[in-house]
Amino acid sequence: MSVRSELSVSEYRHRGDQMRAYMEEQGLAGLCIFGAMRIFYLSGFHHLATERPVVLVLPLEGDLALLVPHLEEENIPLRTPHIEEVRVYREYPGTEHPMHHLAGLLRDKGLAEAALGVDAGGWGGGWGYRGPELGEVVPKARLTNVRDVIDDRRMIKSPAEVELIRRSVEFGNVAHSLLQDYTEPGLSELAISMRAAADASLHMTRVLGPDWEPMGSAAASAGITSGFKTALNHRRPGSRRIRRGDVILTYASAEVGGYVSELERMFIVGPPSERQRTYFDLEVQAQDVALASIRPGSPCSEVERAVNAFLEEHNLHPLTRTHIGHGIGIEGHEAPFLDLGDDTPIEPGMVLTVEPCLFLPGEAGFRHSDTVLVTEEGCEMLTYYPRDIDSLTVDI
Amino acid sequence: MSVRSELSVSEYRHRGDQMRAYMEEQGLAGLCIFGAMRIFYLSGFHHLATERPVVLVLPLEGDLALLVPHLEEENIPLRTPHIEEVRVYREYPGTEHPMHHLAGLLRDKGLAEAALGVDAGGWGGGWGYRGPELGEVVPKARLTNVRDVIDDRRMIKSPAEVELIRRSVEFGNVAHSLLQDYTEPGLSELAISMRAAADASLHMTRVLGPDWEPMGSAAASAGITSGFKTALNHRRPGSRRIRRGDVILTYASAEVGGYVSELERMFIVGPPSERQRTYFDLEVQAQDVALASIRPGSPCSEVERAVNAFLEEHNLHPLTRTHIGHGIGIEGHEAPFLDLGDDTPIEPGMVLTVEPCLFLPGEAGFRHSDTVLVTEEGCEMLTYYPRDIDSLTVDI
Repeated sequence: MSVRSELSVSEYRHRGDQMRAYMEEQGLAGLCIFGAMRIFYLSGFHHLATERPVVLVLPLEGDLALLVPHLEEENIPLRTPHIEEVRVYREYPGTEHPMHHLAGLLRDKGLAEAALGVDAGGWGGGWGYRGPELGEVVPKARLTNVRDVIDDRRMIKSPAEVELIRRSVEFGNVAHSLLQDYTEPGLSELAISMRAAADASLHMTRVLGPDWEPMGSAAASAGITSGFKTALNHRRPGSRRIRRGDVILTYASAEVGGYVSELERMFIVGPPSERQRTYFDLEVQAQDVALASIRPGSPCSEVERAVNAFLEEHNLHPLTRTHIGHGIGIEGHEAPFLDLGDDTPIEPGMVLTVEPCLFLPGEAGFRHSDTVLVTEEGCEMLTYYPRDIDSLTVDI
Repeated sequence: MSVRSELSVSEYRHRGDQMRAYMEEQGLAGLCIFGAMRIFYLSGFHHLATERPVVLVLPLEGDLALLVPHLEEENIPLRTPHIEEVRVYREYPGTEHPMHHLAGLLRDKGLAEAALGVDAGGWGGGWGYRGPELGEVVPKARLTNVRDVIDDRRMIKSPAEVELIRRSVEFGNVAHSLLQDYTEPGLSELAISMRAAADASLHMTRVLGPDWEPMGSAAASAGITSGFKTALNHRRPGSRRIRRGDVILTYASAEVGGYVSELERMFIVGPPSERQRTYFDLEVQAQDVALASIRPGSPCSEVERAVNAFLEEHNLHPLTRTHIGHGIGIEGHEAPFLDLGDDTPIEPGMVLTVEPCLFLPGEAGFRHSDTVLVTEEGCEMLTYYPRDIDSLTVDI
């Protein structure tokens, strides 16, 4: 495994063909795509998005082209030799702004006054970027937002994508096993988290061979929060030291060929209290309800409705904070969402997380998250870490 | 040090007052800000940006308000108790889309039909997000893009911000020292990188006390690439094992109170060859030229011109890939840029990286990066890791 895109060139050609069929149907002469993850989806070119725009231009007829800064030029033949047309600008902002280079590329491809599909009005605007919107540099083009059309296509994973996610699950399982091995009272969250992430990443170097490097910023990732922090969302592993009686929330993942998975568990440090056992078991039951309600043809919203019915029956609904799960693949969160407001029909090939939560304010949070593949009959759990409280109790 | 914002409430009030003065001057009744880093700059509220919009509304008259998803609600009194008005929506997409909640908040504040400054047309569009633009949910509002006005303010750091960056530099120096200690032939890039990042992060837990956790996803970060990979940009630490004779490029940083710094060096593994010594020394000279040309009142572009003149004199210009540096603070790259295309006047209080590069294709890259503070007279190096080849030769 190397830094080259892991999917076959024909898979990228197929994605391009799908988009061209859509363009033909909608009367669009080309696409102009700014989102790094959509560029990766359509071309296999993975890059670190900074102040320097990278833009994909896919014409209805003719070659796909990439606009890149000089510093990415040499990465293209190494990563995506199938990309034939590359337009290079020296630097951002440079003496000629990258958006004007883009206008030149569109002119050369006969697209500057055409009907174009875009996923954004221009380059994102982080990392100190400033510059004109696309509509300002090609004022005669007619722009239509096709972001959701691409993201709709991304919802259904191909067999090759599922294979990469399965590899991610395996390495995530290693990272998570190490998290549990390394958790003991007195150690800080950060010490346990970083040791597990480092050792799981080393394991990846041993399995994936000497040419491998992660595409994104992390190889394997792993982390825990503990105690009262578990009742708050999006807290980070920090200095807090693990204590007897803590509830711990974990996460583990790994990036393989640009794809990720999600595995989260709750640990109990030492023999669980009755109260901990109660909420742990209720959360697992809620997750079982969610898993059983994932059925092709059923709307995503149905999964949250089913879980809500279960929670209301047990007077637990005020303890939830989030929807039940989300798509995952190239990004850690993708559409669709297992949310009351998302009526997208569930389809075979979707890869989803399933993670209802129960939060006791000021005290502890309870959540498992598993990654599942939707099948013709229901769903297959891709993650396989134990879910029962005995397996997840840290001996002290 | 805790998860609370580290700057004083009066500093945030001052930033709000500055923006209000601008709004008054421009006839704007309020601001509506989507960028997570700009929200942090204006309010001190740091969050993980996902599919769930977080939006700051700053009226010309009346309280600053934040729109947040339910899962962030409990973080606000812990992190930014000075934020008085908080509007909570249950979830994304939810049965009522967050952008409609935002429209309701704007209506309640009398801003739905007003002249508003915005930093984007709507929520970013990663993590599976989809939804209407702001102009669609408040069609009678008149929107003006003020992104660059806020980012201009961010260029000049306050003494309290510089203090946080100095702390970041100290921890980055620890991480970088460990990188050098741990580098030896036979070990993989990833093993060395993750061990240094983990141990430097543990050091931070010891210094910053039991309540500390990083605001962003990393505490200390550290990494190396080696050999032919150093001649390519944005490559990641991977499986490649260090060999005698390698050039190594490093990076180290740490996040303190939401602020970062940048420290990068080249190592030579074993006694440097004459060729390595030549390019190493030329790069250091190019960096000296850059440092000497940072003068208040001079345009940023002058720094790249000075370096280019030096490089052309030595026939080295074809070996460069990037501009000479960039602002840094809340984000790893910020405006302004030490780039031919950026004529922003250099001003005291700017914090900049200085990092000219020389790349020998297929062979090796040469680059130091230091973080400097612009003073009344020139600039002060904040990073203090040795720059000479003897100090940066790895004994084997």
